[in-house]
Amino acid sequence: MTVKDSLILLTNDDGIHAEGLRYLRIASEKIGRVSIVAPEAEQSAVGHSITLYDPIKAHEITREGVFYGYGISGTPADSVKLAIYSLLPRRPDLVISGINNGANLGINVLYSGTVSAATEAAILGVPSMAVSLAAKKAPPFEWALPHIETLARWIINNGLPSGVALNVNIPALPPDQIRGFKLTRQGLARFNESFERREDPRGNNYYWLSGQATSDETDDGVDVTALKSGYVSITPLYYDLTAHSCTEQLACALKKI
Amino acid sequence: MTVKDSLILLTNDDGIHAEGLRYLRIASEKIGRVSIVAPEAEQSAVGHSITLYDPIKAHEITREGVFYGYGISGTPADSVKLAIYSLLPRRPDLVISGINNGANLGINVLYSGTVSAATEAAILGVPSMAVSLAAKKAPPFEWALPHIETLARWIINNGLPSGVALNVNIPALPPDQIRGFKLTRQGLARFNESFERREDPRGNNYYWLSGQATSDETDDGVDVTALKSGYVSITPLYYDLTAHSCTEQLACALKKI
Repeated sequence: MTVKDSLILLTNDDGIHAEGLRYLRIASEKIGRVSIVAPEAEQSAVGHSITLYDPIKAHEITREGVFYGYGISGTPADSVKLAIYSLLPRRPDLVISGINNGANLGINVLYSGTVSAATEAAILGVPSMAVSLAAKKAPPFEWALPHIETLARWIINNGLPSGVALNVNIPALPPDQIRGFKLTRQGLARFNESFERREDPRGNNYYWLSGQATSDETDDGVDVTALKSGYVSITPLYYDLTAHSCTEQLACALKKI
Repeated sequence: MTVKDSLILLTNDDGIHAEGLRYLRIASEKIGRVSIVAPEAEQSAVGHSITLYDPIKAHEITREGVFYGYGISGTPADSVKLAIYSLLPRRPDLVISGINNGANLGINVLYSGTVSAATEAAILGVPSMAVSLAAKKAPPFEWALPHIETLARWIINNGLPSGVALNVNIPALPPDQIRGFKLTRQGLARFNESFERREDPRGNNYYWLSGQATSDETDDGVDVTALKSGYVSITPLYYDLTAHSCTEQLACALKKI
């Protein structure tokens, strides 16, 4: 297969009508054939949710009269499952999730729908990456495109270790100000967060989660730090949550119960 | 602090009215003081979702006229965050999530709301465990209670490595038929799953995910296998998704881009 014949599945967690997805399509169409399967509605912070107890609907979405992709009634992980098992003509060669409006770094990776779509693809044996741009308002998505194109070509040509997805975070800088790609680890520092308690007009309490800023990481090898230093941060992810570093210690301790 | 003064937070993903939670409370009240904060509605397969763009409501739920706990409008992970940051009088000494009706093994761990509540507690620095009973219909929750009590006491007395949550799966067997506790790894085998396409009365397609059975694991050290052999499977989990085994290989490869 040549790169031009490759099939790239695009998805996201901001919904099929998101601007980030439209830009991702521009970069991907330079490489190979593109299919889009994404949630119809915005699905931020859904984590690795899947839909077990409801059927999933898939609607054909058109843009300017031309078929654009399938909008589905499920989550980002559902989109990847349904695309690969049912909607695509064949297994894709690459899944890209994004472009997310805002970084997905550190512990946030666990909450991110964007990242979980890429992880789901990895579980299903398809190389994948989640792409996020570290901007919030009026994100300059076009700045991310050359990096995405480079990485997508590289993955299609070289593959990824089995079961691995890349979590790619791009600084909101023009391409010529980016210092390069940097392989990183997921940051593990806790957030400074809290709940703000308010009272509704009928005297009932309700709570807003606030202060979701990432905490100060100083470790050079961590995603947060690399991004701050102007690198495109690339963290390889694997779907094994086992705390391997302490299994021996705990196995010994358990014998004494 | 004596074990009797300990504060145990209980939550789940089946909702505050679930039978499994009622049994979990019975076991926990033998140990220390108990607080319940759980989703008001059933939240299976929500994974590690959190609520960022809506406020969370917390209702005081009573059972037979007595305060039972807070039912909240969010997810299992939200429950743990809100309890620890706002609702509890002090930091709990242990968080237990469950008792889930059905096992949470292998890759399912990523999709499990039960497990994500325990992981969230670990992120917030509180020792925790997720407890699941491997039964489906009319689950004999009482069979799980002595194991939960033993493990809960052990965690309160000994602590857990920082950031670690235990994923505990209990076979649906009377306590005297259990072969013991076994420290395990998360199974990584893929599922045999597919989508069943159906047509609604108006001719539109919709899709049901089916075949969610775990695949054949033979590795002795894995959660699925331990459970099948009659052990209580205990997998320590950590919230780092980095694929550490391939970071060096990928770092070298990236330099050639």
